[in-house]
Amino acid sequence: MYELGVVYRNITRTDAAIADALAQYGSATVHEAMGRVGLLKPYMRPIYDGAQVSGTAVTVLLHPGDNWMMHVVAEQIRPGDVVVAAITAECTDGYFGDLLATSFKARGARALIIDAGVRDVRTLKEMNFPVWSRAISSKGTIKATVGSVNIPVVCAGALVHPGDVIVADDDGVVCVPSGTAAHTLEAAAAREANEGAKREKLASGVLGLDMYKMREPLEKAGLRYID
Amino acid sequence: MYELGVVYRNITRTDAAIADALAQYGSATVHEAMGRVGLLKPYMRPIYDGAQVSGTAVTVLLHPGDNWMMHVVAEQIRPGDVVVAAITAECTDGYFGDLLATSFKARGARALIIDAGVRDVRTLKEMNFPVWSRAISSKGTIKATVGSVNIPVVCAGALVHPGDVIVADDDGVVCVPSGTAAHTLEAAAAREANEGAKREKLASGVLGLDMYKMREPLEKAGLRYID
Amino acid sequence: MYELGVVYRNITRTDAAIADALAQYGSATVHEAMGRVGLLKPYMRPIYDGAQVSGTAVTVLLHPGDNWMMHVVAEQIRPGDVVVAAITAECTDGYFGDLLATSFKARGARALIIDAGVRDVRTLKEMNFPVWSRAISSKGTIKATVGSVNIPVVCAGALVHPGDVIVADDDGVVCVPSGTAAHTLEAAAAREANEGAKREKLASGVLGLDMYKMREPLEKAGLRYID
Amino acid sequence: MYELGVVYRNITRTDAAIADALAQYGSATVHEAMGRVGLLKPYMRPIYDGAQVSGTAVTVLLHPGDNWMMHVVAEQIRPGDVVVAAITAECTDGYFGDLLATSFKARGARALIIDAGVRDVRTLKEMNFPVWSRAISSKGTIKATVGSVNIPVVCAGALVHPGDVIVADDDGVVCVPSGTAAHTLEAAAAREANEGAKREKLASGVLGLDMYKMREPLEKAGLRYID
Amino acid sequence: MYELGVVYRNITRTDAAIADALAQYGSATVHEAMGRVGLLKPYMRPIYDGAQVSGTAVTVLLHPGDNWMMHVVAEQIRPGDVVVAAITAECTDGYFGDLLATSFKARGARALIIDAGVRDVRTLKEMNFPVWSRAISSKGTIKATVGSVNIPVVCAGALVHPGDVIVADDDGVVCVPSGTAAHTLEAAAAREANEGAKREKLASGVLGLDMYKMREPLEKAGLRYID
Amino acid sequence: MYELGVVYRNITRTDAAIADALAQYGSATVHEAMGRVGLLKPYMRPIYDGAQVSGTAVTVLLHPGDNWMMHVVAEQIRPGDVVVAAITAECTDGYFGDLLATSFKARGARALIIDAGVRDVRTLKEMNFPVWSRAISSKGTIKATVGSVNIPVVCAGALVHPGDVIVADDDGVVCVPSGTAAHTLEAAAAREANEGAKREKLASGVLGLDMYKMREPLEKAGLRYID
Repeated sequence: MYELGVVYRNITRTDAAIADALAQYGSATVHEAMGRVGLLKPYMRPIYDGAQVSGTAVTVLLHPGDNWMMHVVAEQIRPGDVVVAAITAECTDGYFGDLLATSFKARGARALIIDAGVRDVRTLKEMNFPVWSRAISSKGTIKATVGSVNIPVVCAGALVHPGDVIVADDDGVVCVPSGTAAHTLEAAAAREANEGAKREKLASGVLGLDMYKMREPLEKAGLRYID
Repeated sequence: MYELGVVYRNITRTDAAIADALAQYGSATVHEAMGRVGLLKPYMRPIYDGAQVSGTAVTVLLHPGDNWMMHVVAEQIRPGDVVVAAITAECTDGYFGDLLATSFKARGARALIIDAGVRDVRTLKEMNFPVWSRAISSKGTIKATVGSVNIPVVCAGALVHPGDVIVADDDGVVCVPSGTAAHTLEAAAAREANEGAKREKLASGVLGLDMYKMREPLEKAGLRYID
Repeated sequence: MYELGVVYRNITRTDAAIADALAQYGSATVHEAMGRVGLLKPYMRPIYDGAQVSGTAVTVLLHPGDNWMMHVVAEQIRPGDVVVAAITAECTDGYFGDLLATSFKARGARALIIDAGVRDVRTLKEMNFPVWSRAISSKGTIKATVGSVNIPVVCAGALVHPGDVIVADDDGVVCVPSGTAAHTLEAAAAREANEGAKREKLASGVLGLDMYKMREPLEKAGLRYID
Repeated sequence: MYELGVVYRNITRTDAAIADALAQYGSATVHEAMGRVGLLKPYMRPIYDGAQVSGTAVTVLLHPGDNWMMHVVAEQIRPGDVVVAAITAECTDGYFGDLLATSFKARGARALIIDAGVRDVRTLKEMNFPVWSRAISSKGTIKATVGSVNIPVVCAGALVHPGDVIVADDDGVVCVPSGTAAHTLEAAAAREANEGAKREKLASGVLGLDMYKMREPLEKAGLRYID
Repeated sequence: MYELGVVYRNITRTDAAIADALAQYGSATVHEAMGRVGLLKPYMRPIYDGAQVSGTAVTVLLHPGDNWMMHVVAEQIRPGDVVVAAITAECTDGYFGDLLATSFKARGARALIIDAGVRDVRTLKEMNFPVWSRAISSKGTIKATVGSVNIPVVCAGALVHPGDVIVADDDGVVCVPSGTAAHTLEAAAAREANEGAKREKLASGVLGLDMYKMREPLEKAGLRYID
Repeated sequence: MYELGVVYRNITRTDAAIADALAQYGSATVHEAMGRVGLLKPYMRPIYDGAQVSGTAVTVLLHPGDNWMMHVVAEQIRPGDVVVAAITAECTDGYFGDLLATSFKARGARALIIDAGVRDVRTLKEMNFPVWSRAISSKGTIKATVGSVNIPVVCAGALVHPGDVIVADDDGVVCVPSGTAAHTLEAAAAREANEGAKREKLASGVLGLDMYKMREPLEKAGLRYID
């Protein structure tokens, strides 16, 4: 299903203002705003806590145990991008370390999302370069086979097109398709807008049962209380 | 990344002659013919041994624990199709049993590929309706939320467009994009063509080392023999 | 949560007529008849295909790598029982082989359900003694620590009381509590009763969409058809 | 095995003095004091380090991908409770976030133990509301099907009755049945009492071999030293 | 820990009479005869049921996704050998199919034990060439990097030296070190010798509790019977 | 494959100067310096972040759920050692807590590497005693069966001989055989030596494509750029 051996140099990135604005809402709110789709599998975890980013996807397809294309994708990074790396088979090898992170950062990348392993994680944290990955591993890789850059890829179960928006934080990683990003931003903002009032009510002891008027539908669904 | 609540009724299926002809080569040869891409993850296993099929993909996106859309996709099946079912989150519930299989078969489906569980597997075998799934489970499902039919889906890590060709056997499941199916068929036939001669040579004791002329490149790569 | 070092000799078994009658409906139908609860996790698989049994549970709690209590439970087996073995921690060792199977069979046991491993599986198949387990393993066990017999146990995520009914087939394993077994049997029979008519309709090409009158609720739920 | 659609309003909680006192000993000591049973599976991990709590269990049974009952259980929480959430099938969705945590905290809950996923983990940490879960996931849930509140549940392999004591820390989660809580507290205190002296001895270089008089039993068990 | 790029041509194989004789006892009995060590992890499963073999190990170390050395090891096979393939990282790719099997069989190999995937499994079964593997996968491999042949390898968690004996059946795979093979054969024969009598006793209804005189030690260990 | 019931008191440790010097390079660089072998599986994770150690291996083989030999190995520890613990079957029990850590530390151990679980992790962190393990678990162990000390063991897929050097940090754990440690140290130092210059270049925006002269080989390998 993948076109191999190609690098697409011209991709259409989602408008930067939209891509940047999505970060503040976080992956959970954005995922809800999209209708509960677009999430990468939850085995994708940040290598350190507290990072929260969004940016436009630059994609790379790699072969198991081979990180050659990481150097190819580096050249295609523009400030504000997030690199999304998919592998043609399951692999936990350490494709990425402090040298590549230095290069990615110099090109303006905000983060790496990789369906494999990374290493030098202590240095990556010191550099403040966040990574979401399926593993951490010292295992090195070879440079033998070409993959592709900026083709649509499946990363951790989610389809990512070059130029889509990636939103990542401690809860996980969401991909927002370019075409729905503006709408998703609005929906996320709307969701967030009335959360403050809800939070205050709940903090004062009001129950969700009452605030969301759930008692009647629960009774209709057959819920019985027993003393 | 998914469009929810839609059923595309008109999809462009790969030419039936091509789709049908791919079955004979099996998933391993077809996967090689495509340049070693297109494979669904190897956790997808047949519920019984020995089935080998190909057909045009009709896709369905389901929610975890909810098989409502299975009835919707049934209507879109045409003879020669293979149903490809993706779920919006990981799930092993039994979405499909003998009643749905009866319906799918009546519509002309050749197989089901589902990134979740199925049940009634003994009956499915008796009916000769093959399924490749990630699990077998008695766990039933509800009918509460709509998904979509005939949108592109990610199934077991592979992107499948409606109309693509699915090839499945005891080795696994491959998705051949519609646009490259004719070329893949030729490449698979070419691969198969000279396997007979190779097999005979190897059976007579000739080594792959000699048949493939590997001794020199191995030596160059640094291989040493020690007596 | 477990009482250790005890063997309850007198347990109340579900009525044999009910326990025996449940086998014919299989685990999927029985699980539905119970309201979709009671299922052991789907990693529990039969060691060979085609067995379908039901019987009253005799339970045993074992320690990891220690099968001493298997000999203790053997004495408590009565004809028509199914032994349900839980372990106090995750373990895949081979707790059970052909000698124990000979003993269990001589006592009248119909099957073993064990949240661990078994061995001698070829002989077990020849003996026609079915086992559902999480693993197959040659790894032997020691006899050092006492557990318990006929206390309530959690086996593969399901709570099993001594005397409950176990239903197991190629789809998995269900535990039916003694108190609801009669009702479950009725519900299973009722489910099965009208399946024949449904199967015929579906085989003739009638769609579930029409047979179950789903078109209207799907439309209300927002499903749209696109040509 | 589960009664569905019921909320038990009156449960017998373990005496608060006992439930509160168990926290200080931690899950490892309490688990030993119980005779090495009662532990939830080790895949249950805290969402942040350093929390150590105990409290009385209020239980809730949920369906996969459906958190409706979380609002029902909120009403049953009393100060000093720990909510224990079980799911009828394996699921990693994010059932719980900062709004529900605000509500639980307002009702007096000390923690959540859930055999599924949670989200908003950074906020939960800021709120100082600890959670032990099998996953972290942005994936949202629906509100469609009723489960139950305050029935006995199997959570991560352990049977938990409403009113039992939960002890949780960085090492894991233990359930102490109400009936044995007083005895367990004494046994834990006794274990802890003589640990200080042991620790001092070991710190001074005395070996466990001598302190526990293991040399003779090891020799009897066949251990040989080779120079 | 591995020497790379070497092929040892002269290895000391365990005496053929011993290596051949071990097959009849099967992996469970041999594993017991060795003192319950030597077992490969239970995720190693046969690709078809019913094969039971033993033979002398010829080892090969491969890189992830690279089967080049399979052709190198083929030349080192002698009649009666079993090829044991280890990988330097976890991988499920299909390293081996019908062409290599033809070559291995022509050289006299009895089986392949591989800590990765294989393909063409239907043909392998027709050829009667048994394989124990961690996976079945259509995924092909490249030929780019040299590994080693006939060095000690760790395969599925077990250390295997060239010339050791491999015993494999439906229960799993055991490695018997060359130096202890004769002793293991005797111990296995002795174990088997008195199993017939035991089986008869158990079949007649005698309990293991009595046959093994376990009642007293169980009582001493604190087991209580409750009526 | 394991000799059981033996303690080797005299082992040849790698020269301390070499063993100590390897820590500074970290597991990723050392793994590369060894030719990309020697790594323990990446499921081995530190119980807290930031520790980076090296030392000479003292090995212990344990049975599942049995930590008796931990006290035996304590006596064999010398200052500068790292204890490497292997188990004869997969197990996640908590073999090691603060008391044993006090003893190990008093004997001069720098760390524990264990292919199982540990507990009291908060105290271990306060004590500054690092552990790399496959799990964290409150589950206690028994003391019933003897294993061995200072025999070669397979730990998390890697073969470790007593006296080998262990290097561990946030990226994972590497075993450096005694015989190649001096050479590995040199190779690691050489790798590190020219990393500074590379890092500076990459930080200034120079691409790896140019720095490593990859453009030509990539073109030869068939990579095409599309505008």
